[in-house]
Amino acid sequence: MVTMENKKVLLNHGSGGRLTHQLIDSIFGSRFSNPVLDQRTDSAVIDVSGQKVAFTTDSFVVNPIFFPGGNIGKLAVCGTVNDLAVSGATPQALSVSFIIEEGFSFDELEKIAESMALTAKEAGVSIVTGDTKVVNRGMADKIFINTSGIGPIRQERAGIGPGEKVKEGDVVIVNGFIGDHGMAILAAREELPFSADVKSDCAPLNHLIADILDTTDQVTFMRDATRGGLGTVICELAESRNAGILIEEKALPVRNAVKSMSDMFGFDPLFIANEGKVVLTVREKDSERVLGAMRKNPLGTDAAVIGRVTADKGIVEMKTMIGGRRIISMPAGDQLPRIC
Amino acid sequence: MVTMENKKVLLNHGSGGRLTHQLIDSIFGSRFSNPVLDQRTDSAVIDVSGQKVAFTTDSFVVNPIFFPGGNIGKLAVCGTVNDLAVSGATPQALSVSFIIEEGFSFDELEKIAESMALTAKEAGVSIVTGDTKVVNRGMADKIFINTSGIGPIRQERAGIGPGEKVKEGDVVIVNGFIGDHGMAILAAREELPFSADVKSDCAPLNHLIADILDTTDQVTFMRDATRGGLGTVICELAESRNAGILIEEKALPVRNAVKSMSDMFGFDPLFIANEGKVVLTVREKDSERVLGAMRKNPLGTDAAVIGRVTADKGIVEMKTMIGGRRIISMPAGDQLPRIC
Repeated sequence: MVTMENKKVLLNHGSGGRLTHQLIDSIFGSRFSNPVLDQRTDSAVIDVSGQKVAFTTDSFVVNPIFFPGGNIGKLAVCGTVNDLAVSGATPQALSVSFIIEEGFSFDELEKIAESMALTAKEAGVSIVTGDTKVVNRGMADKIFINTSGIGPIRQERAGIGPGEKVKEGDVVIVNGFIGDHGMAILAAREELPFSADVKSDCAPLNHLIADILDTTDQVTFMRDATRGGLGTVICELAESRNAGILIEEKALPVRNAVKSMSDMFGFDPLFIANEGKVVLTVREKDSERVLGAMRKNPLGTDAAVIGRVTADKGIVEMKTMIGGRRIISMPAGDQLPRIC
Repeated sequence: MVTMENKKVLLNHGSGGRLTHQLIDSIFGSRFSNPVLDQRTDSAVIDVSGQKVAFTTDSFVVNPIFFPGGNIGKLAVCGTVNDLAVSGATPQALSVSFIIEEGFSFDELEKIAESMALTAKEAGVSIVTGDTKVVNRGMADKIFINTSGIGPIRQERAGIGPGEKVKEGDVVIVNGFIGDHGMAILAAREELPFSADVKSDCAPLNHLIADILDTTDQVTFMRDATRGGLGTVICELAESRNAGILIEEKALPVRNAVKSMSDMFGFDPLFIANEGKVVLTVREKDSERVLGAMRKNPLGTDAAVIGRVTADKGIVEMKTMIGGRRIISMPAGDQLPRIC
């Protein structure tokens, strides 16, 4: 096993892919084990004096910290809001913790804070507590931000839970174009020989998700597709629910700019990070109603059915443009480090 | 003002002292403002569907990551447990988020995780959710850990709240020796010409605090004394409650090793960091009962009354060993960076 051979943490241990899973299993899983953690969901759902509360955390180390469509602060608010929302919670309160490199400019810190405040307002959450640490020059890369968040579970979770059955025939929906975030980060990092017209999709999805959950109580799976992209979420869905999934390549919403950049750099848009995309499965009979509700929300205008649940338990396949089929499996690591 | 003159973040902006307050006020305060955040308490107390829940966050960047009496992982669990407990909450669930430098050893990560698991067990809290990020070599200093935590408020907070009146004559109590943590870190960093027999006091205080709150509902102030030491907490108490405080130097529990090291390095034990110390004020009539309860707990055997609330609103004074008085004021920054 790669992880144990050299006994060092690799960049890809933080990618959200198979190596991350291995690290968590081998080091944290057994030691921290408890019924809530062991579910490995986006947010923990715990019972606080009779009230079901979702609780989640994420640290953001994105490089560069400013990119087309957002910055590390906006990302930090969106990421945690979205993790709560896909768990069936109403995001209510966030904590924000900064680790700042000595010498970081007040100007940039103000821009980041401003952006966090605006995004929190858009999402309707309050930043209620925080922490600031400063480390010596060279001991951190500019700024890292942790956001944690809590919110009450909004109902019996509309079926979003690891116990729910994803059934053959359920349809897989995504709310719009995939790969924008990862390609925006890449474009911001590299000296490209062309102008890449691609912006991060970084957005708080909680209102869109509320629109979905108001429409149906038959959402059988819901997750935001971040690190590892849509492909990783679909693989996790197949694995965790023992469901087969068939994706239609031609149904995947991918912008031309993202397609071109992917071709140029040898990436697969299926595994490129997003920060404003939610993937869900619903019963087929509800799919038109759900799509209708999604398309009324500005963050869901390009919502599409991208595939279906099949009888091939645990297997993810893609029907390609030319009609062939290929097996999709979770990559060991990410194609791009530090995209969130 | 120092902070605005050069417009760069300084190490001492992360010290928990006056510069940290200025940074928070000037950059975050106005932008994130809301009634909960504006209280600036150790934990936010929010109403989640009718249940009062405490919520807090802290990032840990201590250097070195292993030190006599603990490590960054133990510290991360204790810090958040203690912030919840001093807010009158029963710590229930923690999130843990790691930022790891590429190349960090699995061995050390396992030791840290083991220590976190043990400390969580000791405190009776569960680690329910987490996140792992890895950054390139040289982009972080080994490992940073964020813990956030939640727990229900255990009663009407036994008077621990910014609205409570700290009255003239109330006594100030601390649960034991001060300055151990900061001096243990310093000893671990420096090549000392002697063997410094000092260990960090890093410990989860929630059971001790429960013992106190079971004994009296007349705790008028409670805070853990971490960054900035006991002195900073006393100054914050004086400022936030508009109370005068008179500390008796001879009543301060300071170990000989900490005294010697403080003298040698020119530090004041009053402002050296602790990670297992709680400061509280109670009505004088309850003080013996509270001290009795504290001393039965292994973390409170050296509990002592160290001072009293006076009529000199907002002023902190110390009656020195030789009978003089000196004004105590909050330092701009910490004497030692990265102690937590």
